[in-house]
This record gives sequence, C-alpha cells and structure tokens, in this order.
Amino acid sequence: MTAGRSSAAAKTGVTRVVCEQLAPRVGDLTHNKALALDAVRRALADGADIVVLPELVTSGYVFETAEEARTTAITVEDPFFADLSAVLAGTRSVVVLGFCQRADDTGDTGDTDDALYNSAAVVDASGVRAVYRKTHLWDRETLFFTPGDRTPPVVDTAHGRIGVLICYDLEFAEMPRRLALAGADLIAVPTNWPLVEHPAGQYPAEIIQAQSAARANGVFIACADRSGVERGQQWTQGTAVIDQFGWLTTAPPTATSETASEQRAAADLFLHLSRDKAISPHNDLLGDRRPDIYTQETPLL
Amino acid sequence: MTAGRSSAAAKTGVTRVVCEQLAPRVGDLTHNKALALDAVRRALADGADIVVLPELVTSGYVFETAEEARTTAITVEDPFFADLSAVLAGTRSVVVLGFCQRADDTGDTGDTDDALYNSAAVVDASGVRAVYRKTHLWDRETLFFTPGDRTPPVVDTAHGRIGVLICYDLEFAEMPRRLALAGADLIAVPTNWPLVEHPAGQYPAEIIQAQSAARANGVFIACADRSGVERGQQWTQGTAVIDQFGWLTTAPPTATSETASEQRAAADLFLHLSRDKAISPHNDLLGDRRPDIYTQETPLL
Repeated sequence: MTAGRSSAAAKTGVTRVVCEQLAPRVGDLTHNKALALDAVRRALADGADIVVLPELVTSGYVFETAEEARTTAITVEDPFFADLSAVLAGTRSVVVLGFCQRADDTGDTGDTDDALYNSAAVVDASGVRAVYRKTHLWDRETLFFTPGDRTPPVVDTAHGRIGVLICYDLEFAEMPRRLALAGADLIAVPTNWPLVEHPAGQYPAEIIQAQSAARANGVFIACADRSGVERGQQWTQGTAVIDQFGWLTTAPPTATSETASEQRAAADLFLHLSRDKAISPHNDLLGDRRPDIYTQETPLL
Repeated sequence: MTAGRSSAAAKTGVTRVVCEQLAPRVGDLTHNKALALDAVRRALADGADIVVLPELVTSGYVFETAEEARTTAITVEDPFFADLSAVLAGTRSVVVLGFCQRADDTGDTGDTDDALYNSAAVVDASGVRAVYRKTHLWDRETLFFTPGDRTPPVVDTAHGRIGVLICYDLEFAEMPRRLALAGADLIAVPTNWPLVEHPAGQYPAEIIQAQSAARANGVFIACADRSGVERGQQWTQGTAVIDQFGWLTTAPPTATSETASEQRAAADLFLHLSRDKAISPHNDLLGDRRPDIYTQETPLL
C-alpha cells in the first residue's frame, strides 16, 4: 500500500465504490455541509475507496428564486473543501459530490460576472482535484444556473481514472462516450432524479440510460441520487453502481414513495476490467466505432 | 385513405407496427423466402402498417464458410423482392427485412468485386425503397461480410419516416442519434441477438440499449429478433416494440430456452409523437445537445 496518486492499485486490486443517497435541506448550507462530511466519514468507515454524493448536496435543489440559489453558492476556496480533504487525510480515497458554485471561483475564466453553476468536485486528501460544471441543465435549473462550457475531465486517481457527469448529462450518450474514449474506468454521477412514473416491472428510465452507457462503453458507472422530499418533490432514489457490462451490482431501486430514505449502494469492483474493450474475438467496443459513418449526411428517401 | 407515399396518415392516425420473430433455416433460400412472405401476409392480415422481420431472414445466420454464405446471397433484382411488393400491392404497408446481399447489386459502387453484405431492405408496393448495408459487424460476421460504408437512410413512407439499423449497429448510440437528427419517427431493427446470460430480473442488454436509444432520441424502435435454434445457437428472442419514451409496449422477452418459438410483437402507435422533442418546459431532447462540448478534447488530470 502506498499513499499518493499512483494508480497501481487500480491495476491489481479491488476498489470499493460507495454511493450515499442523502436528503439535504434546501438552502441550509451549514446542515448540508455536515451531512456530506458525515456521509463521507460513514463511507470511509465502510472501507470506501471512492465515495459519490448527490448533485447539489451542499445546497439542495428545488430553489424558488435565483437569489435563494445564490445564498447556497460556494467556491472551492470555501472551508468545506478543506474540511473534506481533512476527513480524507491519511487515505487514498476520492470523493465526488455536487455543489452550487459561484463563478468567481476558479479564476480561470477572466469573468467578473456572478453566474452560478451546478458543479461537481473531485476531492482527495490533497485537495480539490477537479471541478466540472454541468453542461446539460434540466428544467428549472435553466432559471438559476449558467451551463458549463467545458467538457468534463478524467481524473487519474489512486483508484483508477474517474470521469464525472451530473444527472441529465448522462442522457446524452455523447458524454459517457467522450469519457470512455479518454480512458475513464468509472463515471461518477451525482444526480437529483425527480420521480416520474414508469411502467410496473420496468426500471426507472434514468437507470436504463446508465446501464446503456456502461455497456456501450465498457465503463463502470456510480450514480448517487437523492432521498427525502424537498418542497413536495420526490426522487427516483435510483442510487446504483453499474458494472462494465451494464448490469446493476446493487439492489434495483424500488422506492417510489416519500417513505424511503437515505440508503447506500456499495460495490467492490475490479475497475481495471474497464480497460479491456474486447467483447468477442472480432469486436472491440470502442475500436468498432465508425466515425466515418457518423459524420456522413443522412439521405432522406 | 389515399394510396402512395403521402405521410399524411402519419400526422393524424394510428400506425400498427408488427415485428415477426422467425426461424429461418440456414442456407435454405427457397424455404426462407416463403417463410418471410408468409409472415408478411400474416402481419397484413393482422392490420400491420409496418412489418419488421429479422436480420438475414432469407439466408439464416450461423454460416460455416464464406462459400455457404455466398449461396444465400441475392440482389434486389431477385424475384423475391418483386414477390414481396406483390404481396403488398393495394396496401400502403411497408416491410423492413434483412437479407444477404451480393455486391454486384445496386450498380452504384462501380465495383466488380464479389463482396457480401449483411443488408436490410425497405420495401413497399412500389418496390424496394432503400437498402442499408450493416456497418458494425458482429463477431464471425466479419469473416463473411464486408462492412457497409454508408450511413443508413431515413425513408419517408405513408406511415412516417423510417430509419433502419441492423442488430449490433444499435449498440452505437451515434447511429440512432443520426437517424433521429435526420427526422426518423421509427427505427426498424432487424436483429439476430445471440442469447447470452443476464442477471435474473434484469432485461437482456440489447433491450436496454434499444430502450435507451428510444428515450434519448424520442423515437419509436421496433426490433425483430430470431427464434429457433440454428447450429446450436440460441437467441435472445427479444422482439419488442418500444415507444418514444423508451418503454416496452409489448411483453418483455422471457424466452431463454430453445423451447420458445415464433412470436409476434404488435403495437398501435402514434408515430407522429416522435416529432415533439420537448420533455419539459425548458428542455428539448435534440435541442439540448451540446456539439461544442462533444468535440472538445477531454483533459486528463
């Protein structure tokens, strides 16, 4: 065992991925920061190497006004992230979580505007390794947030290469494809999936999309959804860890009422298996792509 | 009711889509042609507007040699297609089916080679409307077939715009995306899905991919799979019609043994609903795409 960012472990060992399905309180930063830190401590006690928390876990989701969203906005200079790295001190573990981000944060845009972003951070003991700003905004998010203008990164961690998407991003197959082509082993997906009806016996559509993305790209996917009820909004509670073949490794979501609550999806994965894209003696998931075909104009006959 | 290629009906009426899951005999062209024509007659008697038959339905699938595959190869000049159009005479119905195609067929390549293609034809009473040659070949297909080099067309029919993919093509999300962007209402998918194990309670992976493609693009998808056992090969028997939200409109596949046989998936659909891509007051399935993001280079941190 070595500390630091070597990815040797990813090549030989088992990685424990834990998604914590939480119920933050909208607008209550103090409560939500403590909730997130407690969840990380709990996951670490459970042996987690990679912890995924929900989208906007520090702020809540169902904002009424942009002003309310703004009161929950933080930068990566916020003490919360130092506190989180302190919780991770002495471990090689990695946390991916969603937060409401102020634009005057990274200092790399040159902007002086006060835009808000629906962002996710990748954090380890060394600090914030990466921030991704959600590029596909869902419904009323468009009223509060500015869409990101940069493709998500792949972060090389002690436990393999982690790509990040946020909720609705995953519905666009182009996004997990890009991450897989860039070498992601695992895609961590902080989400807030509003509950919608689905036919009995069929999985929630968001789970189907995640399964499809995992299978099509030979990558693992870990989704941390919401629990609780926020201003009347229920959640799919679809927290799940999906293997590189697209199969759920954790119990399928069954909660469809407000009675369900916090739950954990945990799986022990050989993440390096994502690096073998051969699926038959004659096929390779990524090598079989035909970009020459995908860029032709479709004839309408 | 008017004859011809007007798509007026697609805007106002119900379209009955019927997928016939069949068991052709490998190498037996005469038998298989009759099998296909009988299935079309049966579907028409059931009121079918659009009929989908399996991949390579005229030839069978599990070839032992390229020479054997060649004995089953036909061109669109083959009397079979005239026979099929004759069956459709007086109707506005459309058939999509797979066949083993000889290269010296369309005359549009200028080639004099003798390549074989795993192709699908779109046929109505007027004749063969389009041919698509499978571009993503699966496993031993690579030993017998040349991959197509043209993107699939969208065919404007009396019952809406039909796009065509063949089996493994559907695993590449770029393909249904292209067809949806070109205006397809329905994607017809002749398939031969070899049976592979899947976890109890989860759907076959190919069904999940089809559901995902339908949902992500707001299009209907009709898959006609194989039945029977061919040289020991069993099939998923996943024949299914999926709506524009990604839900199975027909019974989920349950057959996992050689005892299952021919079956039909039929659904009455408002195909014009595929033309509304709005999925929230602020979201549009295709309009929300971010090509500016999809073409950026992914940073590796």
